[in-house]
Amino acid sequence: MYFGAVEAGGTKMICAVADDQMTIIDQIAIPTTTPQETLAQIFVFFDRYSLVAMGVGSFGPIGVDPAKESYGYILATPKKGWTDFDFLGSLKERYKIPFAWTTDVNAAAYGELKQGAAKGKTSCIYLTVGTGIGAGVVVNGEIFQGNGHPEMGHIRVKRHPSDDYEGTCPYHGDCLEGLAAGPSLEARTGIKGQELPEDHPIWGIQAYYIAQALMNYTLTLAPEKIILGGGVMNQEHLLQKIRQQFTEQMAGYMETPEVNEYIVRWALPNQSGIIGSLLLGKDAANQKGFLV
Amino acid sequence: MYFGAVEAGGTKMICAVADDQMTIIDQIAIPTTTPQETLAQIFVFFDRYSLVAMGVGSFGPIGVDPAKESYGYILATPKKGWTDFDFLGSLKERYKIPFAWTTDVNAAAYGELKQGAAKGKTSCIYLTVGTGIGAGVVVNGEIFQGNGHPEMGHIRVKRHPSDDYEGTCPYHGDCLEGLAAGPSLEARTGIKGQELPEDHPIWGIQAYYIAQALMNYTLTLAPEKIILGGGVMNQEHLLQKIRQQFTEQMAGYMETPEVNEYIVRWALPNQSGIIGSLLLGKDAANQKGFLV
Repeated sequence: MYFGAVEAGGTKMICAVADDQMTIIDQIAIPTTTPQETLAQIFVFFDRYSLVAMGVGSFGPIGVDPAKESYGYILATPKKGWTDFDFLGSLKERYKIPFAWTTDVNAAAYGELKQGAAKGKTSCIYLTVGTGIGAGVVVNGEIFQGNGHPEMGHIRVKRHPSDDYEGTCPYHGDCLEGLAAGPSLEARTGIKGQELPEDHPIWGIQAYYIAQALMNYTLTLAPEKIILGGGVMNQEHLLQKIRQQFTEQMAGYMETPEVNEYIVRWALPNQSGIIGSLLLGKDAANQKGFLV
Repeated sequence: MYFGAVEAGGTKMICAVADDQMTIIDQIAIPTTTPQETLAQIFVFFDRYSLVAMGVGSFGPIGVDPAKESYGYILATPKKGWTDFDFLGSLKERYKIPFAWTTDVNAAAYGELKQGAAKGKTSCIYLTVGTGIGAGVVVNGEIFQGNGHPEMGHIRVKRHPSDDYEGTCPYHGDCLEGLAAGPSLEARTGIKGQELPEDHPIWGIQAYYIAQALMNYTLTLAPEKIILGGGVMNQEHLLQKIRQQFTEQMAGYMETPEVNEYIVRWALPNQSGIIGSLLLGKDAANQKGFLV
């Protein structure tokens, strides 16, 4: 019994097939070009399997309200050719099986909750800091869903006293993503994030913004765990700085778990999203009574 | 068949009894003094009725995790004598009936969702701006509950360019509550909020902060409706300024309902909390099978 999953990103599509123990038996990365080209390759990969269900965690924004026509669509994205593309519909037309459909970061949050850093918990936030900043949320063991999916990377933040950079976000300028995603590091310093020395003052500024976002998320969602993923977070010293800043900024307000337990690195590096998508696919099969 | 409810505030306790149509047949306001004195008066009021269930919406912070010993307690509050008081336990000891227990603002959000400004919706945020700033959240028709209840009044915000006031929050200084609750208006201008003229520049600053908070909440929770309550919000011009600022700050990012439909004033002035508490009490009776 096989399950399929796609972690759909703006640069590549990770496709995987797992058995009913959720052990991945086949995985491939397909470059994201045009929808037609990319889908053709996705079909070649999955056509070789008889799948019970599929889960898709996609880059966004995406339509997630089943009551709306936009459900299953990629919405306004800077990625050329993908705006208003019926991604889920195209997959469903090819494979007549139950599907789960959510954002890449929601899938990653779910993966970490079930098999990763938040195992045994019922709620978590997954925040990825890379080219952009995005977050997924699980509450009561289920993906959190409002009227749309969260866009928590774009919240506004209080300025660090020694930072006057205007920010990179085309919509908001100095929202969180504009001030703390990877490109802002290079824009401020002229040095690529991964080449910046540990003692560069920019890390203090970045930790200040990320910690502030975690504080605002905590005050709003009160999760049991916050999991940090993404390229920028590969800096171990940054995690420490964020924890320290978080404690300082919260100032003892509101009961939260011990900070080293509360704010952690991902436990499924680069795999949270695809594992979460597989698990969501399996859940979808269960809900539809496909698994007995 | 009668239901009871308490909207417990730091200055007064509103107690009400309603019939099974949720029509309030008796209501009283008791000054909040010591727990012992106040409870004695609450008992006098409710002892006259044979109640099926009760709902309590309380000032906080409060313990809301049934798995913890602090469940039902008032936690660290500036209100003298109430810290670590087992409020729910004291009520339960007197009345052996099903109880609902949540924050005052969560109860208000629930009241507005069921009978007020968010009627027919499944999610909303209720934000009160008065002496403090607090918010309640309903998602999928139920009160939103993380590891604790939301404390969204204390998120940090980007500074208004012409505001350098240090803020009134004893924990964070210039968090949202510190910069935009009633006392900050008077502290900056020397004039009581309700006496400030409509064209005073302070209103622009306040609208900027409140709108920013609504933007951050929207990006995180994506509710169908945001309802504004509380004394400061009695200024109609302020509501307009907030809507305008919200639209400007969001800058077209993320699909939200039309702003005049999305950000609205309460529909149950000063009654959202007590009505919500009554409804939650009735729900509790239903869940326990007390109503057939």
